[in-house]
Amino acid sequence: MVPGGTLELSGERFVVHYRLAGEEDEARQRAQAITVEQTIEFPADLVAAGDIHDHVLGRIASFEPSAGGTGWDVAISYAVEVAGTELTQLVNVVFGNISLIPGIRLERLELSSSLLKRFRGPRFGRQGLREMFDAPERPLLSTAIKPMGLSVRELAGFAHAFALGGIDVVKDDHGLTDQPFGRYRERLERCVEEIDRANRKTGGRTIFMPNVTADGDDVFERARLAREVGAGGLLVAPGLVGFDTVRALAEDDSIGLPIMSHPSYQGAFVVGRESGISHYALFGQLARLAGADASVYPNYGGRFAFTRDDCRSIAAGTVVEMGDVRPIFPAPGGGMSLEKMPEMLETYGRELIFLIGGALHRGEDLVETSAYFRQLAERMREMGRD
Amino acid sequence: MVPGGTLELSGERFVVHYRLAGEEDEARQRAQAITVEQTIEFPADLVAAGDIHDHVLGRIASFEPSAGGTGWDVAISYAVEVAGTELTQLVNVVFGNISLIPGIRLERLELSSSLLKRFRGPRFGRQGLREMFDAPERPLLSTAIKPMGLSVRELAGFAHAFALGGIDVVKDDHGLTDQPFGRYRERLERCVEEIDRANRKTGGRTIFMPNVTADGDDVFERARLAREVGAGGLLVAPGLVGFDTVRALAEDDSIGLPIMSHPSYQGAFVVGRESGISHYALFGQLARLAGADASVYPNYGGRFAFTRDDCRSIAAGTVVEMGDVRPIFPAPGGGMSLEKMPEMLETYGRELIFLIGGALHRGEDLVETSAYFRQLAERMREMGRD
Repeated sequence: MVPGGTLELSGERFVVHYRLAGEEDEARQRAQAITVEQTIEFPADLVAAGDIHDHVLGRIASFEPSAGGTGWDVAISYAVEVAGTELTQLVNVVFGNISLIPGIRLERLELSSSLLKRFRGPRFGRQGLREMFDAPERPLLSTAIKPMGLSVRELAGFAHAFALGGIDVVKDDHGLTDQPFGRYRERLERCVEEIDRANRKTGGRTIFMPNVTADGDDVFERARLAREVGAGGLLVAPGLVGFDTVRALAEDDSIGLPIMSHPSYQGAFVVGRESGISHYALFGQLARLAGADASVYPNYGGRFAFTRDDCRSIAAGTVVEMGDVRPIFPAPGGGMSLEKMPEMLETYGRELIFLIGGALHRGEDLVETSAYFRQLAERMREMGRD
Repeated sequence: MVPGGTLELSGERFVVHYRLAGEEDEARQRAQAITVEQTIEFPADLVAAGDIHDHVLGRIASFEPSAGGTGWDVAISYAVEVAGTELTQLVNVVFGNISLIPGIRLERLELSSSLLKRFRGPRFGRQGLREMFDAPERPLLSTAIKPMGLSVRELAGFAHAFALGGIDVVKDDHGLTDQPFGRYRERLERCVEEIDRANRKTGGRTIFMPNVTADGDDVFERARLAREVGAGGLLVAPGLVGFDTVRALAEDDSIGLPIMSHPSYQGAFVVGRESGISHYALFGQLARLAGADASVYPNYGGRFAFTRDDCRSIAAGTVVEMGDVRPIFPAPGGGMSLEKMPEMLETYGRELIFLIGGALHRGEDLVETSAYFRQLAERMREMGRD
């Protein structure tokens, strides 16, 4: 038997909503197991009465059959002090060890107000990006330079064309890093230059977002270089570098650029429907809490297996009330084309960033296709009004 | 149509083995899709003939029915230049976007020799740890200080008892970070002090491994502090901070300590049997490539759903030939107890670190139970000889 613990705690708790699979008995046991696994990770019967039992352990706040009848909706509360002040530890508490147990899905975070105050979240958010592009109402537009293997000159040429057409965000394809056949610095400099040149012609505000997903400090070196050279934002994959790297980028005043998060290496959390994390929490709430201003994910009907409901839930997670943490843009992509825009408008409303990649090259002329892309978005100013 | 690309490539490729679910036609299509998705992410029909088609695209090296008859074993090769020199990009190439597609499981990495040379891997490995503990033959022993919520004095008292009993590695429980009720620095200092005191009494070599899983630069600050104060190693969760943080810790000469990787937040990759990453590749090969000297994971028969075969495969991944990258220790834990040791010896042989946590507190006296734990391991010097 170990001592029961004597602690000075605020008493404030935050709530995490899980869906548990299986029969009721099994699910109740598993809920109980979560309260231990995510906190003390120690046989509860070996701990004497005291604050560890009363406060440190997770607590089942509610347990009821899921609406869909396919499991159990369970809310578990944790003391804010367990998560400390660290984003990394918050992620650890809400889904660290239990990621290893099948049949537990993290559905939704309901963070307490003092916990939310510890996270600045996105620096710009929806409103900030709308101001940046002087686009108060229409959906925003994004594309990527690719394919990998073209020369920097060729890729920068595409960037120029996209900007001439009026696409707001031209980003690196997420597979472009600092390969021997396409160096980061050269690509960054040329793309910024070509986009500036286009902006001067059109009076537009297109920005370049290089991919700063990289090893160790290179993330920050590349981000600072991006700022220095005049890039307008950053692309980063939290699955590869950790959510906290997004936070550190967002909070760094010497960088101060908007951030798009990319879903690479995060898919395993969502493809197992009974396990993992909901689309809502992963691509909506967590991306936002970490500080992304836009969250890229595969749209339904493209190359990936997301459903329309999954995608709508992501959009909901980007805007749900989370204290002072700003709403961000959903940025559905992954095999999208111009033809799908009207239906996407119906699904999402105007609060989104259309992300169309390779399909723009199917048109005759890249500038014209890009301009048509922009035109479609402009028309949506009216159509998508709620 | 975009240009075909003109590149100077070495021609060297590395191979990744996937298992694909579904009917043959569908699996063949998906294999083809992987070659595009993980490289150019661009409609292949829009790329003119040239080096992009010939070299940058992934290439199907083999496609055959899985031995178990439950899918298709597919080997895909990639140009080494696509992964560049970065661990982060290597992970991105082998499983980034396709993590979002159900029915694709990364089974095994077969890296080319020049690619392997770019990674130093673990600084110590099995041999280094065996020398550190002067334990050329027996299994090594590990435990964690917990539960969260006890005072630093109480936790350090446990550390003292564990060291008196002769447990090699006393680590922070992975949920202990820098909470208001248990500060990192104080815990580190007290535990190192108490373990040193015990070592002086016993002539033993027990080390303390604090948990450095944290936000941003705190990982490295805590690791450097650990070195300064005299800790013998570090615990870190690559799922939370990214594989590359492990690499950076392992390669940092100003730190120079052995590393245990913890599986927190990595479970989603393995729980979906048809999707995600194999236990072998994730907890064996990737942990090792990143530079962990020991890889913690839940043993079969404990609180988690790993099977005996899963666990054996991890052990195999920790030792399979990977150029100069040293073999590391599997460290199965998660609800283990002394009773399970003989069977574990049968499963793993002597090349492992037993990790027993809370169960040690079930004995009458912590020092005696720890000493008995050590005794059992000493006896295994002979028993487990291959």
